[in-house]
Amino acid sequence: MALSLQNYLYRLVEESLPGLSIECVILGYQDLQLKTLVFKTKGFESWSLPGGFIKKDEQLDQAANRIVEERAGLKSLFLNQFHVFGNPDKSFGSQDGSLGQMEAWLNAYELKEDEVLKKWFSMRQVTIGYYALVDIQELKTVIDPLFESCEWISVEQLPELILNQKKTVSKALEHLRIQLHYQPISQSLLPDRFTMPELQRLYEILLGKPLVRSNFQRKMLDLGLFLRHEKKMSGSANKAPYLYSFDPKKYQKALQQGIGFRL
Amino acid sequence: MALSLQNYLYRLVEESLPGLSIECVILGYQDLQLKTLVFKTKGFESWSLPGGFIKKDEQLDQAANRIVEERAGLKSLFLNQFHVFGNPDKSFGSQDGSLGQMEAWLNAYELKEDEVLKKWFSMRQVTIGYYALVDIQELKTVIDPLFESCEWISVEQLPELILNQKKTVSKALEHLRIQLHYQPISQSLLPDRFTMPELQRLYEILLGKPLVRSNFQRKMLDLGLFLRHEKKMSGSANKAPYLYSFDPKKYQKALQQGIGFRL
Repeated sequence: MALSLQNYLYRLVEESLPGLSIECVILGYQDLQLKTLVFKTKGFESWSLPGGFIKKDEQLDQAANRIVEERAGLKSLFLNQFHVFGNPDKSFGSQDGSLGQMEAWLNAYELKEDEVLKKWFSMRQVTIGYYALVDIQELKTVIDPLFESCEWISVEQLPELILNQKKTVSKALEHLRIQLHYQPISQSLLPDRFTMPELQRLYEILLGKPLVRSNFQRKMLDLGLFLRHEKKMSGSANKAPYLYSFDPKKYQKALQQGIGFRL
Repeated sequence: MALSLQNYLYRLVEESLPGLSIECVILGYQDLQLKTLVFKTKGFESWSLPGGFIKKDEQLDQAANRIVEERAGLKSLFLNQFHVFGNPDKSFGSQDGSLGQMEAWLNAYELKEDEVLKKWFSMRQVTIGYYALVDIQELKTVIDPLFESCEWISVEQLPELILNQKKTVSKALEHLRIQLHYQPISQSLLPDRFTMPELQRLYEILLGKPLVRSNFQRKMLDLGLFLRHEKKMSGSANKAPYLYSFDPKKYQKALQQGIGFRL
């Protein structure tokens, strides 16, 4: 194992751009919580976002897609580049102790004294953040053998993440909230058919604040993006809410043209 | 000169992160045109955006601010990071011939055979784009001795730019157009007081399409961001348009909270 891991890491160093990496915030909605996918590396205490390096001959978007596929088996996600993080302290050797963990990890494979790997992992990391909104129910994650486990964890209850990646998650949420002002992005977070109270709950979680029901429904329906279906039966028929779905053409048009302030 | 330029470039190589640079799209509005600031390096045929490298111990935003100050003497601009460009072909040696120019330039200073500099300038460049909106009338540019001249040129009539930087400019405009859906960002492009037809002309230029006058004025005034002043007198008094300014408090609030789709 030591040799093959060494070869794997040497090839990584050889093939990748130095000091530049990608971190992906994959967001989904489950049990009334907004969750993100995090990994635990074998022999590491902290968790991490799906991330990795960029090959010397690779486009950035291509690298992001390859990384989520390699790490978690997720194909063809629509990943949005949203920010570059370049704090000079950001490295596997930063104060969060990840270099300590990295050293212990390399040590476990008898690679601790390897100068090439030590240099590579102690370099300053400029990281490019990507995010995607996904339907957790539809995704099956298949993890890379380097990892012990992967989990969807509520963004409110994340454990310690290496490389100050909690900041990456908050910044992704900031971008998502701005995006809600000009794009109807909730489709991939919802089942095909949903009620207005279900949609409202999702928006409340995304925005982090309660919303007034009548106001919410009026503004949403005014967007003209929905198809109305039968009622969702559970209790009494006259109180049952209608089910809606997004009108696919109108949704696409709104994605392209925006729903914000328009002239 | 040869020696001091060599020293300057060696220090640059020593102090900077390899393969990572910053490009700034500084946009202003003048003579009914949206213009951007471009530079001509001494001995180069192509023009370039104000750009440069990131010091090893520097924050990215700090680097962007230092670069526009060093290149053009512009201080305290509000620079927005908007995109990272990472095409594997992007380098000073790419097909636009900038390495040819770079070589001729190094040759003029007898530095063409310098292996350190050759390696540095032929590396793949991942570039971080920043943009700022400025009041051209209020800015005085003071250029770096490496440059021959700097000019504000209409984004519609840009000359050849090195490193495929025209793409950086188009992407900045794309972001600016999206931003118009949720932020009232025109203040820095306008004089303190302006008429609605003047504001409309600016929006038409930013959006690249004509707008209907009555509709434009109603929607703008509905935002509730303006203070109305006296009429702008030029022809007959009853046809003279009112002058407006942004209400500073309301403008700031709208910048923070957005003017897009709100719940």
